[in-house]
Amino acid sequence: MYIRNAWYVACTPDEIADGRPLGRTVCGERVVIFRAEQGVATALEDFCPHRGAPLSLGSVRDDGRIVCGYHGLVMGGDGHCVGMPGQRVRPRIRSYPTIERYGFVWVWPGEKALADPAKLHHLPWAESPEWVYAGGLFHIGCDYRLMIDNLMDLTHETYVHASSIGQREIEEAAPETRVEGDSAITSRFMSNIMPPPFWQAALRGNGLADDVPCDRWQICRFTPPSHVMIEVGVAHAGEGGYAAPPEKKASSIVVDFITPETDTSIWYFWGMARNFNIGDAALTETIRTGQAKIFGEDLAMLESQQRNLSEQPRRHLMRLNIDMGGFESRRIIERLVAEENNDLLRTTPTA
Amino acid sequence: MYIRNAWYVACTPDEIADGRPLGRTVCGERVVIFRAEQGVATALEDFCPHRGAPLSLGSVRDDGRIVCGYHGLVMGGDGHCVGMPGQRVRPRIRSYPTIERYGFVWVWPGEKALADPAKLHHLPWAESPEWVYAGGLFHIGCDYRLMIDNLMDLTHETYVHASSIGQREIEEAAPETRVEGDSAITSRFMSNIMPPPFWQAALRGNGLADDVPCDRWQICRFTPPSHVMIEVGVAHAGEGGYAAPPEKKASSIVVDFITPETDTSIWYFWGMARNFNIGDAALTETIRTGQAKIFGEDLAMLESQQRNLSEQPRRHLMRLNIDMGGFESRRIIERLVAEENNDLLRTTPTA
Amino acid sequence: MYIRNAWYVACTPDEIADGRPLGRTVCGERVVIFRAEQGVATALEDFCPHRGAPLSLGSVRDDGRIVCGYHGLVMGGDGHCVGMPGQRVRPRIRSYPTIERYGFVWVWPGEKALADPAKLHHLPWAESPEWVYAGGLFHIGCDYRLMIDNLMDLTHETYVHASSIGQREIEEAAPETRVEGDSAITSRFMSNIMPPPFWQAALRGNGLADDVPCDRWQICRFTPPSHVMIEVGVAHAGEGGYAAPPEKKASSIVVDFITPETDTSIWYFWGMARNFNIGDAALTETIRTGQAKIFGEDLAMLESQQRNLSEQPRRHLMRLNIDMGGFESRRIIERLVAEENNDLLRTTPTA
Repeated sequence: MYIRNAWYVACTPDEIADGRPLGRTVCGERVVIFRAEQGVATALEDFCPHRGAPLSLGSVRDDGRIVCGYHGLVMGGDGHCVGMPGQRVRPRIRSYPTIERYGFVWVWPGEKALADPAKLHHLPWAESPEWVYAGGLFHIGCDYRLMIDNLMDLTHETYVHASSIGQREIEEAAPETRVEGDSAITSRFMSNIMPPPFWQAALRGNGLADDVPCDRWQICRFTPPSHVMIEVGVAHAGEGGYAAPPEKKASSIVVDFITPETDTSIWYFWGMARNFNIGDAALTETIRTGQAKIFGEDLAMLESQQRNLSEQPRRHLMRLNIDMGGFESRRIIERLVAEENNDLLRTTPTA
Repeated sequence: MYIRNAWYVACTPDEIADGRPLGRTVCGERVVIFRAEQGVATALEDFCPHRGAPLSLGSVRDDGRIVCGYHGLVMGGDGHCVGMPGQRVRPRIRSYPTIERYGFVWVWPGEKALADPAKLHHLPWAESPEWVYAGGLFHIGCDYRLMIDNLMDLTHETYVHASSIGQREIEEAAPETRVEGDSAITSRFMSNIMPPPFWQAALRGNGLADDVPCDRWQICRFTPPSHVMIEVGVAHAGEGGYAAPPEKKASSIVVDFITPETDTSIWYFWGMARNFNIGDAALTETIRTGQAKIFGEDLAMLESQQRNLSEQPRRHLMRLNIDMGGFESRRIIERLVAEENNDLLRTTPTA
Repeated sequence: MYIRNAWYVACTPDEIADGRPLGRTVCGERVVIFRAEQGVATALEDFCPHRGAPLSLGSVRDDGRIVCGYHGLVMGGDGHCVGMPGQRVRPRIRSYPTIERYGFVWVWPGEKALADPAKLHHLPWAESPEWVYAGGLFHIGCDYRLMIDNLMDLTHETYVHASSIGQREIEEAAPETRVEGDSAITSRFMSNIMPPPFWQAALRGNGLADDVPCDRWQICRFTPPSHVMIEVGVAHAGEGGYAAPPEKKASSIVVDFITPETDTSIWYFWGMARNFNIGDAALTETIRTGQAKIFGEDLAMLESQQRNLSEQPRRHLMRLNIDMGGFESRRIIERLVAEENNDLLRTTPTA
């Protein structure tokens, strides 16, 4: 169950560099992504209309047309065939609305006519010279909603990430969840605690003492179709916490684009954006490596959770206070999917 | 098709040492096995009641409670939750009757109320200071009944284990099969034959000449649900064979606990108990290594036999004289499974 | 969908050398191939009638009987059991008509009574002292008809085999397809072109200049059930092309026996027969290695094409002029399969 009429991150620009086409499945749609005419990031069905070979095994010409690697059919970025051995027919394949922005290539797997660029998730930090971003990509064998649950309840940090960002006090600070339109927000604030290793390093990275009591916060925000942005940080205690001035805190945004591949697998684009010490490339790499390790710890847990749930699909799970963030996110998804289906019914002639 | 109301070997104590929980599937039931309160070997569903994560990815506290590795739910050995982040609800999961005895952890996958410790298979050698035991564990992709067939007909030794325990005379000595209550027994006696390499080594291990004619015996005993104990040995010819005095023979018990995992896979606990030269640790290891090699030879055969049978599930197989041991064992299993099903029907209200 | 009443290449003699039996699946039939009495290549069901173990895990006796590796049943080459531990029953298993000829072992997976040796594909080059042959075997995960399509349309050489035999001019020369009885033939002739690397080497191998304009031809001939022989070659331009005298050309026959294993996998026996410089073993090996590399390039394409088609089984594909060779081959297969089914209906009593 996915929201289909939405922008999903399909890949990063480096994955389609040097004229290489990329085959990837987004919400069950197998697409080839490449730079077409004028270098425009483009997504087509990964299926040559001639004999069904994947276009992603082909090559991109200098003029941006993609050439099937089997018999040489030439396809334009609009999905129309523009050349074929000794023939004049002009078959076409499906093209998907695509936007390249904020350092990502976004694809709209649903109805083309509804693809509105204004609906793209706005990422102010990605356009600001005062922020720096680094991240990575994992393929994980789980329902994308299990990853949303994971990110909307950071209680698990204490158990899964005990050596980096976990600490007992997370569990003791009750989270609060609220819904604002199509967003779900879960917040947790800890006062006067010692920062765990990851945040000690971040404080040092910002030139701050790492051995003093701090206030810590986590504000997780789900927005459709499956994005979770988490404001995280620590400030020296008594300096205002979340509202402390920049020179008293280390804070950042955990960025999570969770793109369903199939019902039980995802492409997980993760990263961190920060606005302190942004010129320090070594710090950027330290954070990226640390985050890769932390998110790698979730991987085994999510895949074995999925295996258990697949075996007992009708088993009732619990909904604790800590689960409200994931629960409200799922409710938003369910509502939007239902609306999509209703729209579909409305536009289907009834007799 | 398994007998459900029975004690199966689920693991050995070393598999749950050092506070590690073990995830294992027994008769289709996915369980976590660990040492709970007071170090008591315990089996629970491997499914956290909170969000379905496997408890076997968690850890065992010093007080014997198991902590889910995802969000920290704490479960007692009885399957009741005893702690959960900021909540008072007390969900529970299924617990399985468990006994640790004879160097094995036994689990009862069926109805809890019927789990009678008196029904545990009695292993006198495991309690006697005059015997020593060593063994191992294999995972094999076959129906557990194929392994029972294998062990209840040792004719295959001549072909599968030609270099160790096989010899032409096995085939020439007709086996006799009888049924005693819920047991099936197949016996084979060979007189005045030369011992094959494995038994030459055992004779030497007992300080006996290995180059003289011997009498050899194999007495295979199936008991439900799926245990096969085999008395095997050789005695110098003319000394009474099976009844020869200890100083004239080398004998032992081949121990086989065959625990179904799924319909087409098993956990196979194999080993050998002997009552000669028991202080000789090097001999113990030699025997264990030799036995591992021999039983490893069965593995490929059983898995490819299973593949053939899965492809032709309705094909009729033959039942030779040599197959009577396995045949009678299967009849006992079928009868007991039918009785279980009838009991189930009797206790189900009819309207 | 296969033609069942036909001779398929099942293996090459080296695969059953030294008394080793070979397990292989031909048109969905799992067979064991071995040298039985008098060394005659023989194919039986790979299923011991006793307990279903694969006979291919057994051994072949000096007298050509195959012995099951599990319990020692002895089977003759006619599929009758000729020995079994302490029994007189004589079960039998299916035997398949088998012929060894032309350096291949051929098996008839269909109805035994219809197996006519005269229906074996005749390979004149395999019997002539003026020709030499070398080849290999690939296992590929695709419907066998995708491989026929591949070979009956060499347009793909330009794209898949760009560095060896591909060249732009292939695409520019329109192929012609005709049907002759049960054969489909696709021909393509190119005039006055420069030879690509593979053919340059072949010209040099025949002592001819490799840097002069040539005429080039490809004559692909499909014959049932799934054989494709391709006459290929180049001649110095103006010397008569295909009809040029031997000392002015380098030509050969690409040999393709495509044996279905399952609906979506094949055993692909490929090779090349040539009649120039046949004593040059180094040239033979160079050609074989080059051909292995070229055919290996098709492998990934065919498997991913199959994956795409399996996902969209009802999707309509295109039929271009270049596809007529494959199209006509498929029509012949469909007609012959329909005839087989009709024959089957006719011979089935109706009441």
